[in-house]
Amino acid sequence: MEKVFRDPVHNLIGFDRERDRLVLELIETRELQRLRYIKLMGVSYVVYPGADHNRFSHSLGVAFLMKRVISGMRSFRADPRFRTLIAELERYRPLLLAAALLHDIGHFPLSHLLEGFIGQNHEDWTVKLVQDPASEVHQVLRAADARYPDQVAQIIARTFKPSFAVKLISSQLDVDRMDYLLRDSYHSGVGYGRFDLEWLLHSLRLVQQGDDWEVAVDEKKGLRAVESYLLARYYMYQQVYHHKTSRAAGAMVRGILQRATELLQADQEIFCTEALKGLLLDPAHLSCDAFLQLDDPLLTFALQQWSMSADSILSDLCRRFLRRRIFKTLEVDAAGYRHCEPKLTALARRAGFDPAYYLVIDTAVSDPYIDGLLLGAQGRNRAEAGEGIYLADEALRLTELSRHSALIGAISNRAFVRDRLCFPEELRQGIEGIFAHSGSRPH
Amino acid sequence: MEKVFRDPVHNLIGFDRERDRLVLELIETRELQRLRYIKLMGVSYVVYPGADHNRFSHSLGVAFLMKRVISGMRSFRADPRFRTLIAELERYRPLLLAAALLHDIGHFPLSHLLEGFIGQNHEDWTVKLVQDPASEVHQVLRAADARYPDQVAQIIARTFKPSFAVKLISSQLDVDRMDYLLRDSYHSGVGYGRFDLEWLLHSLRLVQQGDDWEVAVDEKKGLRAVESYLLARYYMYQQVYHHKTSRAAGAMVRGILQRATELLQADQEIFCTEALKGLLLDPAHLSCDAFLQLDDPLLTFALQQWSMSADSILSDLCRRFLRRRIFKTLEVDAAGYRHCEPKLTALARRAGFDPAYYLVIDTAVSDPYIDGLLLGAQGRNRAEAGEGIYLADEALRLTELSRHSALIGAISNRAFVRDRLCFPEELRQGIEGIFAHSGSRPH
Amino acid sequence: MEKVFRDPVHNLIGFDRERDRLVLELIETRELQRLRYIKLMGVSYVVYPGADHNRFSHSLGVAFLMKRVISGMRSFRADPRFRTLIAELERYRPLLLAAALLHDIGHFPLSHLLEGFIGQNHEDWTVKLVQDPASEVHQVLRAADARYPDQVAQIIARTFKPSFAVKLISSQLDVDRMDYLLRDSYHSGVGYGRFDLEWLLHSLRLVQQGDDWEVAVDEKKGLRAVESYLLARYYMYQQVYHHKTSRAAGAMVRGILQRATELLQADQEIFCTEALKGLLLDPAHLSCDAFLQLDDPLLTFALQQWSMSADSILSDLCRRFLRRRIFKTLEVDAAGYRHCEPKLTALARRAGFDPAYYLVIDTAVSDPYIDGLLLGAQGRNRAEAGEGIYLADEALRLTELSRHSALIGAISNRAFVRDRLCFPEELRQGIEGIFAHSGSRPH
Amino acid sequence: MEKVFRDPVHNLIGFDRERDRLVLELIETRELQRLRYIKLMGVSYVVYPGADHNRFSHSLGVAFLMKRVISGMRSFRADPRFRTLIAELERYRPLLLAAALLHDIGHFPLSHLLEGFIGQNHEDWTVKLVQDPASEVHQVLRAADARYPDQVAQIIARTFKPSFAVKLISSQLDVDRMDYLLRDSYHSGVGYGRFDLEWLLHSLRLVQQGDDWEVAVDEKKGLRAVESYLLARYYMYQQVYHHKTSRAAGAMVRGILQRATELLQADQEIFCTEALKGLLLDPAHLSCDAFLQLDDPLLTFALQQWSMSADSILSDLCRRFLRRRIFKTLEVDAAGYRHCEPKLTALARRAGFDPAYYLVIDTAVSDPYIDGLLLGAQGRNRAEAGEGIYLADEALRLTELSRHSALIGAISNRAFVRDRLCFPEELRQGIEGIFAHSGSRPH
Repeated sequence: MEKVFRDPVHNLIGFDRERDRLVLELIETRELQRLRYIKLMGVSYVVYPGADHNRFSHSLGVAFLMKRVISGMRSFRADPRFRTLIAELERYRPLLLAAALLHDIGHFPLSHLLEGFIGQNHEDWTVKLVQDPASEVHQVLRAADARYPDQVAQIIARTFKPSFAVKLISSQLDVDRMDYLLRDSYHSGVGYGRFDLEWLLHSLRLVQQGDDWEVAVDEKKGLRAVESYLLARYYMYQQVYHHKTSRAAGAMVRGILQRATELLQADQEIFCTEALKGLLLDPAHLSCDAFLQLDDPLLTFALQQWSMSADSILSDLCRRFLRRRIFKTLEVDAAGYRHCEPKLTALARRAGFDPAYYLVIDTAVSDPYIDGLLLGAQGRNRAEAGEGIYLADEALRLTELSRHSALIGAISNRAFVRDRLCFPEELRQGIEGIFAHSGSRPH
Repeated sequence: MEKVFRDPVHNLIGFDRERDRLVLELIETRELQRLRYIKLMGVSYVVYPGADHNRFSHSLGVAFLMKRVISGMRSFRADPRFRTLIAELERYRPLLLAAALLHDIGHFPLSHLLEGFIGQNHEDWTVKLVQDPASEVHQVLRAADARYPDQVAQIIARTFKPSFAVKLISSQLDVDRMDYLLRDSYHSGVGYGRFDLEWLLHSLRLVQQGDDWEVAVDEKKGLRAVESYLLARYYMYQQVYHHKTSRAAGAMVRGILQRATELLQADQEIFCTEALKGLLLDPAHLSCDAFLQLDDPLLTFALQQWSMSADSILSDLCRRFLRRRIFKTLEVDAAGYRHCEPKLTALARRAGFDPAYYLVIDTAVSDPYIDGLLLGAQGRNRAEAGEGIYLADEALRLTELSRHSALIGAISNRAFVRDRLCFPEELRQGIEGIFAHSGSRPH
Repeated sequence: MEKVFRDPVHNLIGFDRERDRLVLELIETRELQRLRYIKLMGVSYVVYPGADHNRFSHSLGVAFLMKRVISGMRSFRADPRFRTLIAELERYRPLLLAAALLHDIGHFPLSHLLEGFIGQNHEDWTVKLVQDPASEVHQVLRAADARYPDQVAQIIARTFKPSFAVKLISSQLDVDRMDYLLRDSYHSGVGYGRFDLEWLLHSLRLVQQGDDWEVAVDEKKGLRAVESYLLARYYMYQQVYHHKTSRAAGAMVRGILQRATELLQADQEIFCTEALKGLLLDPAHLSCDAFLQLDDPLLTFALQQWSMSADSILSDLCRRFLRRRIFKTLEVDAAGYRHCEPKLTALARRAGFDPAYYLVIDTAVSDPYIDGLLLGAQGRNRAEAGEGIYLADEALRLTELSRHSALIGAISNRAFVRDRLCFPEELRQGIEGIFAHSGSRPH
Repeated sequence: MEKVFRDPVHNLIGFDRERDRLVLELIETRELQRLRYIKLMGVSYVVYPGADHNRFSHSLGVAFLMKRVISGMRSFRADPRFRTLIAELERYRPLLLAAALLHDIGHFPLSHLLEGFIGQNHEDWTVKLVQDPASEVHQVLRAADARYPDQVAQIIARTFKPSFAVKLISSQLDVDRMDYLLRDSYHSGVGYGRFDLEWLLHSLRLVQQGDDWEVAVDEKKGLRAVESYLLARYYMYQQVYHHKTSRAAGAMVRGILQRATELLQADQEIFCTEALKGLLLDPAHLSCDAFLQLDDPLLTFALQQWSMSADSILSDLCRRFLRRRIFKTLEVDAAGYRHCEPKLTALARRAGFDPAYYLVIDTAVSDPYIDGLLLGAQGRNRAEAGEGIYLADEALRLTELSRHSALIGAISNRAFVRDRLCFPEELRQGIEGIFAHSGSRPH
């Protein structure tokens, strides 16, 4: 008998009340329920009014896709080359589903925005929470199997073997990305993130290479599906995640948090909770309990309170954000910007704007695809890259994807970088004038 | 040249930068932007994890549908019977779009839940805000035309003439419902709310009757489309809006607010902002500015703070809500319930639960359709009912819908009422036992 | 390893190359491949230009839904009440899939239209083909298991036990209807036929009653899903299958076939193949081989040839059909029609139209739902009705659906009948005049 | 008042009964109605069972998109640079809609397959039919305006000025492609052909350059939309239109027609109509009336008749096609193939297969995008290429698309060519053996 959740992306998300009990129990924990209050797309809702869906539904989706991957492999049971894999997948099923479900519990409010500001990443917090004996997820995991807390932590930290457990959850072709591309695309209403999920799952292969595993797709069947998946990701970054207005909104929030931190450090009276104070003033010693009190409603509430604060910079920035008077942007290059910087700073000051908060450079970087060979050569770490994607022929021989695909070749191993100057509308004319006269035209 | 918004329901929502400038300016006001922080479906997200979309995108959708209705009527320009109507629609276009856009600005956080708790309705607040000289919407409206603030207020208050302006925005067949059914259906992932929007718009007619107007659909073309629209509404109430778990969550929130109010009245120290205090202790004198500070993040933040409060009832209820340990429900009838009440109360007390907060009756009522004749006869007011829907033949003679439709007849003039007893999981067995022994079985 | 088909309704239709080999082999037979050349919606394409999809894709869909039903039941494997059922389903799996796939092979071209004209039904032809030792399906079935040809025939003829095999394929809640409603809705572009397939499958139950079986849905979960399914069917009949223009087109084709038959009987020279001649002149002795030569391209080609024939009635009717000058219609009641018949006939003759072909009454009947009790009482046969639908409570006690549903109650046990007079455009004014003056208004 | 058609791709396709009367009258002509009987995707239904939709619904879609393009430009009416364009579009509206609707009336059955076989293209036949005084389209066009027949012919022949009329209907970014990509994608059930139609229309620009016009998209808004459109086209060719099985089916049909022609030339008795005989034996003198008798049902019927003919090659090929025993394929390169040809031929003969019909090379070529500069430089003609696509900045300065897009750059100015050897299943092992031993591996 299944327990089912209605989901707009996957329709019915079902888990078996017996076999998948662990997942169902983890869903009821404080750590998972908290994700209801953290938006999956951060501040993108300023551009896409429909996009305030949350990480809780995403986490269900990721666990569900993991379940589908495991079930899907069973269709190869007649093929002796897949027997070990299928047995392993069954053996690790509870662990794989648990790790998929939990992979995001370490997220800060406003997701990646705060990661950068605080200088901590969500994977480390996920590991910490899973291993904290006081956390509910830890207790549920341990009650199921004493090794599970450590094993989930290893999967998240990418040290677990067999490595397919790691790669299915976090690589360049993983169930996390599959879910968020479809989900963000659905709620924002842009078509860019759609790809051929059914066909991709149908052509997905896990292939053992020595004592490692690669995630691959069937060469004959899956090339176009995996291309469409990578292009979906490329477009979502280009068009949606790195949309100029949502990046500018992010830059404003960073400025706000910066200002609030400084005021708190200077013992100025502004609204704050203990947990938020911990985050801003001493993140290195933030407790798990305090961490779990941090979510989007708290941040939004703080912005509203700060919009009425005595500090004119803090209140002005918050009001602008809440009334959606988002900073304007201009694409610049580093050299041109440095050249103009003195004039820009002077302009801002003359208009009464402190350049530290009102003239901000935002740099958005995306790697649509980094091929596996390069990854090996550079020893680049996972946070930047993930793993290469391979095509498997009938004999399960692998070739690297970008060798086969002109389209993917065109966007491989390239960091797409956009530097944008963000500033209030009031400065627009002045700034455009400065760049126009400098001869160093903005992009 | 159009300004467009991406919308998952209508795809591109566009307004002309010249003709529809008023709408575009109203979108930038504080009152509209606040709706980003009020969920359209209240606490339904506890059941439908994808359903935390907001009233801002809904408001854009309603204004857009109004624009489509106005444009659609233009296709009758060759028919002399529609000439006056088309001219009127053009004349009132800015007003109609403005009223459609603004119809929801008076909503409390958690939408209808707080309306009932406080005993004020959102239409009155919308009127108040539109007429408040200090509000941004008032200023924008007045700058466009000095009569607009009053006229919008009249449309919302349903006193405006010509009455098609009223009925298009608020009746049993209005652009508000068209949008929210589709939108709630989309984000929650249930199919129930889908109906044939294109065909319904195509068959919509406005028909002058004496000095009044009726909203009608073409008898030959539109019967099924309007049926599908009413059935969509019927199902959304039965299955989604009145889902037992989301109603129980609502009952919990009412209990929480009740408890918080009592503690504040007793001068107990609990988290509260001035605006929230105003709402709970003296709603009759709430200022517009305080009203505008009330939104979902504030309420959610309050729940989180209260979950750590010293009052054990308040903190327990909040923790249950936030960890999604939602009350269980049992459908009861009034008589059976009264009969068992003493035993139920005793049971709760023995288990240490104060019955005032842990044994709650929730009554959900929906009117799928009330026919126009009955409405006339009873003089029922708009808040309960709205207006009848008519079918127009080729000569624009009207007949009331339920006369023509067996399906609609089956759900007309019937209030669908469900009384549910809501209680904590811990009491389930005891309560089921009491009802089982009383001979008065729950439904 | 699965063989997959792309399908616009179910996306990927996959069958296991080992387990479902029988289905894959049956797909390659002449009898199945012929269904590519028979449209699922007959002549409805004259109204819905996108609706010329075929019975082959429908047959794949039906077999696939059967596979999903069988797999779905496995989720109850922990419940001892379902163990026998699950074992039975596994045992009969090849047979169930085969019967689902083959259920339509006995269809004439133009589907139901020719059934009525010839007075034979497709189920009888399906049985005949399955049992014909010369047919490819017979040979493939027999090679898999000597009993299969007879067993499939029994399923189609509704005599097979256990009866769930019969009911899943042909009852008021069967995989055949599930597929065609969705498929016809998809290709015609109307939304009416959509229902909540996933939820319906999720709430479907098979319940043993004595030595019989009933198809039921879970009372708590499935009521709305089964309602939406029955309403989908109701609307597809009301709006699409019984659309006046497509019914009129059908009436024209019947007239054409009538005329062609008479000319052939009179030994007039008109285009015909041997198989078609057999069908029209001596259907009782049509051979299986001749039957298999009958398909839509043949009929369409015949219409084109006949449009150039010397017989003015035959050629005129064919030209009207092919140039889409479809007869107009007027809804009439029997009494009113009889009253006016002499005048109508005279009118037609005066205008040079033979009333036998140019004044045709078309009667469209649909039974949205007939409840199981009535069915029992009347001993109505399957061709008219099918079986009742039941709701199953937790103890697997059954209640008849219409007892629980006001909406279904409103359309239960009612035959929706529409009599329409069909005639050429040229006669419209005259006919309307006659009815207007007769005092017996058409509907 | 609009007349509407239900369409699965565009939902409601409406044309105004007054303004667009010409289009509505053209729809009723014999030439348009014939397109109901010509499948849009030729023989692709052998691979995609849902894909037997027709050119009639496509033609409606193309005319509707043209209407949307014309309406869309009206949103620039406040911009003086677009005033002339808008006026011109209004002036040419009937002509543009007519040309869009009629662009495909010259198609042979089986679409492009017969074009190649016969050596005539459909544009020439469209021109011929439009100018033939006996054709219904000619008469309807002329009745509306005496110049229309010639002007439509000029648009189809690409000689009409202003050239936007030509380019909107036939270029690398035209309403024809927009419709067929979406339509083929919809009915076949593959997602590849979907692109962001609404955004593409929203960002479409027509820009005057000297006395010529270019079709462009707004540089800031439309780059991604036009990329997604070109990628949709690229994928539809790679995955669907050039699917190996559907190409092999096409090769078989060419072999069948070749054989039938030879038999007819040799006065062998096989089924044929006069029109088909004219097509096969003397296409240069085919009359318009004979042309209009050619359609898919005729061809399918012929295949069925020929499958029973005395000629063993003809009947065998037809039976294989109809029972879907489609030739297998092997990708080869020209050199490798020539090297192996003698052995292959000998193999076929030994197995009793005439190599002329059973060993066929099929060459599929697609040009995903050819840039405008190259087109100019080479003077390549329209049949091969079409026109470049441009990006327009705010000052309406144009740059060629591939300059801005790494993705489009990767597939620009490249012909994607696939040579495939097609042969019966029975020869597969032998053929693979020959290639394996030759050292010249197939792809």
